[in-house]
Parts: sequence; structure tokens; C-alpha cells
Amino acid sequence: MTLSHHPASASGTAAGDTTLDSLGAGIATRLDELAAITDEPGMLTRLYLSPAHRRAVDRVALWMREAGMAVTLDGTASLIGRYEGTTSGAPALVIGSHIDTVRNAGRFDGNLGVVTGLQVVHALHRLGKRYPFAIEVAAFGDEEGVRFASTLGGSRAMAGSFDAAILDERDADGVSRREALQGFGCDIAAIPRSARSATDTIGYVEVHIEQGPVLEARGLAIGVVTAINGASRGMVELTGKAGHAGTTPMDLRRDALAAAAEIILAVERRARAEPELVATVGHIETPGGAVNTVPGKVRLTLDLRSPSDAHRSAALAAIEAETRAIAGARGVGCEITMSYHAPAAPCDADLSARLAASVQRCGHPAVSLPSGAGHDAMAFRGILPFAMLFVRCRDGLSHHPQEYAAPDDIDVAARVLADFIDHLAT
Amino acid sequence: MTLSHHPASASGTAAGDTTLDSLGAGIATRLDELAAITDEPGMLTRLYLSPAHRRAVDRVALWMREAGMAVTLDGTASLIGRYEGTTSGAPALVIGSHIDTVRNAGRFDGNLGVVTGLQVVHALHRLGKRYPFAIEVAAFGDEEGVRFASTLGGSRAMAGSFDAAILDERDADGVSRREALQGFGCDIAAIPRSARSATDTIGYVEVHIEQGPVLEARGLAIGVVTAINGASRGMVELTGKAGHAGTTPMDLRRDALAAAAEIILAVERRARAEPELVATVGHIETPGGAVNTVPGKVRLTLDLRSPSDAHRSAALAAIEAETRAIAGARGVGCEITMSYHAPAAPCDADLSARLAASVQRCGHPAVSLPSGAGHDAMAFRGILPFAMLFVRCRDGLSHHPQEYAAPDDIDVAARVLADFIDHLAT
Repeated sequence: MTLSHHPASASGTAAGDTTLDSLGAGIATRLDELAAITDEPGMLTRLYLSPAHRRAVDRVALWMREAGMAVTLDGTASLIGRYEGTTSGAPALVIGSHIDTVRNAGRFDGNLGVVTGLQVVHALHRLGKRYPFAIEVAAFGDEEGVRFASTLGGSRAMAGSFDAAILDERDADGVSRREALQGFGCDIAAIPRSARSATDTIGYVEVHIEQGPVLEARGLAIGVVTAINGASRGMVELTGKAGHAGTTPMDLRRDALAAAAEIILAVERRARAEPELVATVGHIETPGGAVNTVPGKVRLTLDLRSPSDAHRSAALAAIEAETRAIAGARGVGCEITMSYHAPAAPCDADLSARLAASVQRCGHPAVSLPSGAGHDAMAFRGILPFAMLFVRCRDGLSHHPQEYAAPDDIDVAARVLADFIDHLAT
Repeated sequence: MTLSHHPASASGTAAGDTTLDSLGAGIATRLDELAAITDEPGMLTRLYLSPAHRRAVDRVALWMREAGMAVTLDGTASLIGRYEGTTSGAPALVIGSHIDTVRNAGRFDGNLGVVTGLQVVHALHRLGKRYPFAIEVAAFGDEEGVRFASTLGGSRAMAGSFDAAILDERDADGVSRREALQGFGCDIAAIPRSARSATDTIGYVEVHIEQGPVLEARGLAIGVVTAINGASRGMVELTGKAGHAGTTPMDLRRDALAAAAEIILAVERRARAEPELVATVGHIETPGGAVNTVPGKVRLTLDLRSPSDAHRSAALAAIEAETRAIAGARGVGCEITMSYHAPAAPCDADLSARLAASVQRCGHPAVSLPSGAGHDAMAFRGILPFAMLFVRCRDGLSHHPQEYAAPDDIDVAARVLADFIDHLAT
């Protein structure tokens, strides 16, 4: 990406300005306010197109207006605030994340990126700073995938890849996505008009809590994301022979669980041997299993992620081959069903280098890491350049009421974002 | 055990008699009849003190009377048929097993031993054969432990070790064992009078399907049991750290399931190294586990059995130590709770040698094997000498409607039992 067609900003470094110095505390306060908006009293649950989502949209819209932004709600209930540049109608940098949550969620996942974006814009607005590009803050509503089967409806609409077929998806109560959008006041016919291109949009930047333990373990407040990992997910079903645990000698067993144990360790071994690859057996069950039965049937899940699609494919092929070999050697049947494959979404090199430069200018080491979790950003793969900034979270915890990012770390992220904006036109 | 105080039988070898030649088919027919007596139409379910148990008692009592036996129902609903010896009131050989079943049971487990005993006596009765000892056939009703928490109430009463405290146990419907016995017409006050001793009882012999694959794998119709294995049973709970499967790098994981996998293989390795020891992880669960979560908690069961208590204890200690070491090396917490220990019940050497001699006289190789499952016989540990004869079953299958023993194999067992009786006084 190049911004050479935009004139350089006239002003100095935003990160040095006094009014940008204490953004972290303000963001944390607004995250607390937002966390009170829930569908389930006593915990934070804010599903897509729910009453709490509606109230959160209204609150964020208010904050956006206070920050000097013009606000629109698009056909997928994405709330977009636009802070014009020095000239009206200039291409926009989009800063986005989501304001829907999982059930019994933490307050940082998604919301942090939206509130950080709008508070940075608010500070720029107070300073009267304008850039040769507009800044938009996008609050998507469909990232967690709790209510409907598919996800990223908002960011995909912005990427121009919204699939109209998902309008027929129904939630657990039988309400379709179409009905829910209409009930929310969204104009479904307008969804295609949400699509962006490089002519109107410079790129997309998302601030998000890491949802993992890497930054904390390395003593870092923030990190620059290299890519959103590709993922393969599926199930291995092993069929041995059930038997009486007392009467079946060891040499006459075809123990599906012992085969599973070998497979679990093979998966672990393979992932440990491959940098940045993670592979997980997260769930296992022994249907009909009992303390006094040799397990005849085992089902286990498999989850592989890597920033490199080639490495992930190679590792998966190796794990599949080893799984079949382990099962075969034990006379255990083996069915591998990999039901889900998503390619990696690499972050834009230029935007990421700019983020890294801002990190260093703010006095922090610029460390890169892949994102193991999916984010709205990945909807822009191949459509718009995007970059992500991760904020350290406590204990790697996310999707949990005790999810936590310290105001000081949030402050670093906000200052980096402001600096990034300030240098984007250079 | 010695029978030297009884005069030798005057008659010849029972196994050679024509009327004892086709017992297998008759036993199989009666097992079919008995299998029709069920609490749940469409399958065989005959719980202790249930209406089906009542009808089965009545049917077996009828058969016992036809076989020339005097019949009594004791205080625990054990049906005892007595075929007097040459002198009335002589010490008895007890041939027993159980007529209760698990839910959706096979027709051979337990019932085979009762019907084989009474059909052999029937044949002796038709032949007019008497011995210097009485023969009793015991149909216990409380072996499977499905209805009440404890089990072997009938055989323990005969062994003199009935624990009156279990009368207060209640079934799933809240009916106490005491109430159920009274409803069945049993005289609870008479339970202590069921107790036997060496002065009135020579010993106890039980014919039972193997419930395992050993005889079938070795091409043998029958086998002589060396001991009912001792057992240790319990649970291992592993507490690692739950994490996001995408965002938690391999080197920052404390994966409880990977630890479990190592433990499962250690258990298997240990059991394979120790002759006649079996060790099983039969059930595993990952509470809260999901495809995209590093497992933070795993519970797995542990079951060890061996004919040698010393070997079992040593193996358990080694497995416990290795489990702790595996968990410790992974930073995973580990709680081992072995809730159940039962000592091995070795079969009587003299009775077993006599059974083996009968097996050989009947033209079969006398092969010994331990019993991995529990049986009524083990109630007599330290009280009366006992021995067991296993009959080959198909595919090791038991506690299953397709449980099967061939009439030819049953016939071998019946002829061996008759021969054993015939030579017992020698």
C-alpha cells in the first residue's frame, strides 16, 4: 500500500500530545459502561441483533458523534462512524472490530478495538486534527458466531463478499437472519452498498486483545500481528473392539483409547516440531465407555492452525498418515473427517511495518506474532490491506468474565494507533 | 480339601453314561426357556427380587424338584436344591451361580452354571446315582449389582459374611433391600442360618461362561480357573490449564489431555510387561472440552486386575508414580483416587486339580486361566474351598444379547462336572 497520492500531514506526532496521553483509562471506563449492556443480567452476553446489541449500537453511535463522526448503520447492522479528512470524501482508513460477544463474555474481546478507535478519533477531534484521509470506525456485530451458523456478516459485507444465502439461516428460536436484520431496522437491500474497494478505503486496522498468553509470557504490552492463522478442523473416529476390562488379556485387545493416546501424542509432537504451528486435540469421548470396559470406540477432535497454509497442509497430511499407521498397527479402524479448512490471512506488509514503526516510536519493542484466533480483519483477505495490533491480556484468558487487559497496555495501543494514523500519510 | 472321611463311590464314571452324553442341548433349551423370563419385554432383564426373578425362581424350583431335589428359598432369595447322598444329611458339594442378569443381558451369564448343575443332578437322579455326599444346586439372585449398590448378598449369606447394613440400601425407586426381600417372601431373620462351614459343605463349584476371549483364541471348549482376580479401581483427575487452541503456543501449554495420553500408554505398557495383569483406562472425559480449546481438565478411570495381589499392588504403585511424574513434568496437577480394592480369590488347589483331571478324562487339554470378572464363588474366599470351570463364549462377548456359548461346549462342561462329582469321593 502506498499513500503517496495523499499530501503529508502538517501536524506533529500525535503520541506526544498531552490529550493523547491518558487514553487507556478513558477507554477502560467506556468498556466498563459497554459491558453493562447485556442480554443476560449478571453477565455479559450480547448476541448479534439482540436488544443489548441495539442498545450498544445506540451508545457507540452517541460516542462516535461526540467524537466528531458522522454515523451510519449499514444493512448488516455494522455501525460506521466517519471522521472526514482535510477534504471531504477522501479515502478512509477503517479502524474496526466487533461489539457482539459470546455468552458470559469478557468486556475486551472486540469492544476494545471499537472503543480504542473511537477514543483516538475523539482525541484527534478535540485537537482539531485532520488528515488527507478520512478515518472510519466500524463496530461490526457478527463476529462471534453464537447466534447464527455463519459469522463475519458485517465485515464480509464491507469486503463485498456477503453471501445472501446466509439470510435464511435461523437461530435457535427459529428466527432467520433476514427477520432479525429487519427487526433491527436494517435495510437488507442496502447490504451490497457496504462493499469497499481500494479506491475508497486505504486499509483496515484492528486493535484486539491477544486472547493468548504470548505477549504476557514475553513481558510485552503489545504486538504486531503477522497473519491470522489458517485452520483445519475435524474429527477422528477410532473403532477398536469393546471388551471386559477384567477378562480381555492385553494381547487380545484392540483398545481404541490406547490408539487415541498415541495419536494425541503424535499430534503434539508434530506441532512442537513446526514453528508457529499449533495442533490440538481439544475433546475426546469414549461412547459407552466405563471403568470396567476396554474402549471400543473413541472420537477425538483435531484442530490445526498455522500462519502458513503450506505448513498446515503438510502437517495435516503427516498427522493423518501417522494416525492411520497407529490405528492400523493396533487393528483399530480409523475414520478422519476434516470438516473445516480456512486459509491463512496474512496481514499487509506495509501497514504492519508502519504499525511496528509506531510501536518503536512509542518506546516499545516491535515484536510480531501470528493470530491464532479469527477476527473481522480476515474478511478483507485479498480485498483490502489490513493490519492488527494485539494487546496483552491477563493469563491468556478470553471468552470469560475474567478476561482482562490493563489500562496501561490499552493506553500503549491507543498511542500506537494515534501515531500510526499520524504517520500514515508520510 | 480332602474327602478321605467319605467312603468312595461304588458306581463307575458318570461321563461315560449314555444319559449324560447329550446334556449340552438340554441345558441350552432350558437356558432359552429361562431367557424368556424378563422384566423388560423384547430383551432379557432380570433384576434381583423383581417379578421376573420371582418367575425364574419358580421355574428353576420346578426343574430342581423334577431333578429329585428338595428345594428351599433362603433369606436372601437364593434358591437351593438339595440332592441327598447315600446317607441323609451328609456334607454337600454346592454347585452354584446366579439367575439375576444385567439389563439387556445375554442368557448364559450365571444362568448357565445353575442350569448345568441342575441338569447334571437330573441325569444322576435318572440314573439313580447317589454319592457319600449330598449335591446342592444354588441359584443366587444378587450377583450383577444392578439394583442395589452392593452385590453377592446371596453367596455372602451362604459364606456367613452377609452384612445386615446393606438391608437399608435403596434402589432407584427408593425401595430398600429389606422391603424388596420381604415383598419377595423372604424371611430376613433367617439370613444368618444360610451360613455354611466346612462341617456341612465340602466345597463350592461354579460353571460360568468365560466372558472373555482367551479360550476361543486358544481353541479350547473349557478351562479351569486359577483365581478370581483381585481388582483396584479408581479415577485420575488431571488439571492443566485451559487455553485457546489457536492462540496458545505449544510451549506455553499445560494440556491435561496430552498428559492423559502419556498416562494411558504408561498404564498399557505396565500391564503388558506383567503376565496375567490387565490394566485399563475405560473411560475418559474432557469436561468443558471443545475442538478449539486446549483441555484444562481431564478425568480418566483406572482398572487393574491380577490373580496376584502382590503384583497388582506393585503395578498400581508403579502406575501411580509414573502418573505423577508425567503430570509433574507437564506442570499438570494430578489427583489419583483409587476407590475400590478387592483381593484376589484363589481357587482351591485340590478342587481345581480334580476339575483338571476330569477335563483330561473327558478328552480335553486341562488349561488354566484366571478369571478377570467377579463371581459368586469369590464370596467363599477363606470360608470354603471353591473351584470354577469356564466355558468358551463367542467373541468374548458378555452382558450383551448376543452373548453365546455353543451347546457342544456346554456339553463338555456338563460331562466334566459329572465326572468331577463322580470322582470327588475318591
